[in-house]
Amino acid sequence: MSDWQEITGGVTAPRGYRAAGITAGLKPSGLPDLALILSDVDAIAAGVFTTNQVCAAPVEYCRQRLQAKASTRAILVNAGQANAATGEQGGKDALESAKALGQALNIPPESILIASTGVIGQRIRMDALLSGIPQLVAAASETGSDSAARSIMTTDLVPKSIALETTIGDRTVRVGGICKGSGMIHPNMATLLAFVTCDAVVSTSLWQQMLSRAADKSFNQITVDGDTSTNDTLIALANGQSRTAAITEMGPEAEKLEAMLTAVCQHLAKAIARDGEGATCLIEVQVSGAADDKAARQIARSIAGSSLVKSAIFGRDPNWGRIAAAAGYAGVPFEQENLRVQLGDFLMMENGQPLPFDRAAASNYLKQAAAGEYLKEDTVLISVSVGNGHGTGKAWGCDLSYDYVKINAEYTT
Amino acid sequence: MSDWQEITGGVTAPRGYRAAGITAGLKPSGLPDLALILSDVDAIAAGVFTTNQVCAAPVEYCRQRLQAKASTRAILVNAGQANAATGEQGGKDALESAKALGQALNIPPESILIASTGVIGQRIRMDALLSGIPQLVAAASETGSDSAARSIMTTDLVPKSIALETTIGDRTVRVGGICKGSGMIHPNMATLLAFVTCDAVVSTSLWQQMLSRAADKSFNQITVDGDTSTNDTLIALANGQSRTAAITEMGPEAEKLEAMLTAVCQHLAKAIARDGEGATCLIEVQVSGAADDKAARQIARSIAGSSLVKSAIFGRDPNWGRIAAAAGYAGVPFEQENLRVQLGDFLMMENGQPLPFDRAAASNYLKQAAAGEYLKEDTVLISVSVGNGHGTGKAWGCDLSYDYVKINAEYTT
Repeated sequence: MSDWQEITGGVTAPRGYRAAGITAGLKPSGLPDLALILSDVDAIAAGVFTTNQVCAAPVEYCRQRLQAKASTRAILVNAGQANAATGEQGGKDALESAKALGQALNIPPESILIASTGVIGQRIRMDALLSGIPQLVAAASETGSDSAARSIMTTDLVPKSIALETTIGDRTVRVGGICKGSGMIHPNMATLLAFVTCDAVVSTSLWQQMLSRAADKSFNQITVDGDTSTNDTLIALANGQSRTAAITEMGPEAEKLEAMLTAVCQHLAKAIARDGEGATCLIEVQVSGAADDKAARQIARSIAGSSLVKSAIFGRDPNWGRIAAAAGYAGVPFEQENLRVQLGDFLMMENGQPLPFDRAAASNYLKQAAAGEYLKEDTVLISVSVGNGHGTGKAWGCDLSYDYVKINAEYTT
Repeated sequence: MSDWQEITGGVTAPRGYRAAGITAGLKPSGLPDLALILSDVDAIAAGVFTTNQVCAAPVEYCRQRLQAKASTRAILVNAGQANAATGEQGGKDALESAKALGQALNIPPESILIASTGVIGQRIRMDALLSGIPQLVAAASETGSDSAARSIMTTDLVPKSIALETTIGDRTVRVGGICKGSGMIHPNMATLLAFVTCDAVVSTSLWQQMLSRAADKSFNQITVDGDTSTNDTLIALANGQSRTAAITEMGPEAEKLEAMLTAVCQHLAKAIARDGEGATCLIEVQVSGAADDKAARQIARSIAGSSLVKSAIFGRDPNWGRIAAAAGYAGVPFEQENLRVQLGDFLMMENGQPLPFDRAAASNYLKQAAAGEYLKEDTVLISVSVGNGHGTGKAWGCDLSYDYVKINAEYTT
């Protein structure tokens, strides 16, 4: 149905991008911790950032850069220290990082965006970062995406990457992305970082609109533990190297590009939810019948975020009452007598009336779905309808296991 | 400072009340499961109920009764089945329960309020409930509060009860209360039920205003897992048996009564948070410097509800960055450079700047506070200031342990 295909290469799949990841010595673990994404020519940049009042210094830095509509050449990302709640010194460290990379690349520091992930309240180990920059720049290559994806990981178990390709006019257009999440909404680890590259020719304002809408259907619809990070950052570059005709307003070509951008964001967002701390499976919640899409997404998010729903799925317990309750407290008015709840193929409530169902078979569905025996992926499907409206929406989460508590109780000590 | 004293007797401490709890056979466990609170004379009633769109049949029933401003004689409470998401049949079951109790007490069914707690989506075992009513009525006594408190428990580890006494004019006035919570915001177990009795002479509208304000400073400020139940119910009766002059508007006497009512509600609310599923300690969050009390309460609730803060406290990890982050996503604007964070006596951030502190000593504070070695109670104190405003607020929660997941993963299966 989709008119694009998956390709390899991550953020270096689109034309004119290089990337790298190295071990600079920021993480105590000695794992890779410094990443670079580089466009050969000036790119336009769009961004979506955390709504947390306590935001990290690199987030403030990027917001200023995007407001000034500076063209972008590079994104520098460190893992290990979040540079959040670091006061004035944090802002100075972000500026100094950009300056050092600018010198090494021989470009203005204003062309550089910055992101950090790691422990809140800790300054970046600046000596390690600054000494690592020459090696990082030297390592940048057209096959460096995987290395970059690995260098931004924190408690992630796997690197997360995707690239898609389509044809616009007679030219090939590509969108690639990498991200990290894990304790997704995990402030201490600075949560979600996602970087998207694209070689389309598109106007800055349209690109920003597309990215904001794509984020609303992807990264804003995943939840691991309900906490919102100080460092959440999604940046998308477009460098025009596909040499298509310029896309400056909505129309068939813009829609094609936005659909592919959204697909990239959804792939990355689902990868984060599936890799949630301690998770054993992905939960996909589909909501229909709401007044509009926004309302449907809000209900879906409420269900995907419920600790009780998540604990039940971990226990492979078809506890549909918790799903109904989580729909009910989403903050979206609906009539209880229109509620419909389905788990996989098991219809459990219709018109607000509970239905008899085979509890053992439904529990078995959860076991098999979580083990990946129904879809290609280890996904449990929850479908809810709240009325006769046309609004639909999806959200993704993961189950809540003992290991989530273990990971988070023992993280800094 | 407070001009009341604690007395024994729970909901039967105020004059003119009786209570009872029996085993009617509603819970599979065979534990007590049916409770009655009875006023010898007509009482006025105020109520605060769940905001969940999916609300239980007894909640709808009580809302209708309170709207009709009917005088109240009795509250019937069953544990075992929540009578939520039970469709039309649920409403019929609630009506039939009230009718049966009315016949046994020889009072109109309109004088009876109803509450349920237990598994969502399950009908009340009506035969067991109906056969239990004569025994329940016969058991009602002036020493029955503890028995009633035990009969409304679900996964609660301890019954929760309090009574306070003060002097208004030359008369003694008493307020008593019992409640259940545990998986506090635990829809499957129907969450929070609280019942308050009082012998003051007070007007219905003033009593409702007092109760709503008291709930905002108590039950609405506790959080165990962020889920909002279908059955949350707080009902307060006032039967006038203290024979004070009528309190019909705010003034010194009304303020005294409201302060005592609030203290009863706060005691019960904290008891619920402390007994949160799997909890090892109570967390009290104090917020100051906000624009108004509502904003302060909202920030306090955000911190007390953060899975990451709760996990850190369970790990006895002085991870103040998570506290700052949870303050930041509360939805209340503030300037990051005004943020102050303190854990016990350990000041960790001031004016938005992180401060050096002795990590081992702070971790030791958490260990000792959770063990009850600082206060009379096992309480960890978190203090946050967000600016120079006069708004203050408190919230209470508990830590997040392995056992929370265990209890919730295995509840219905």
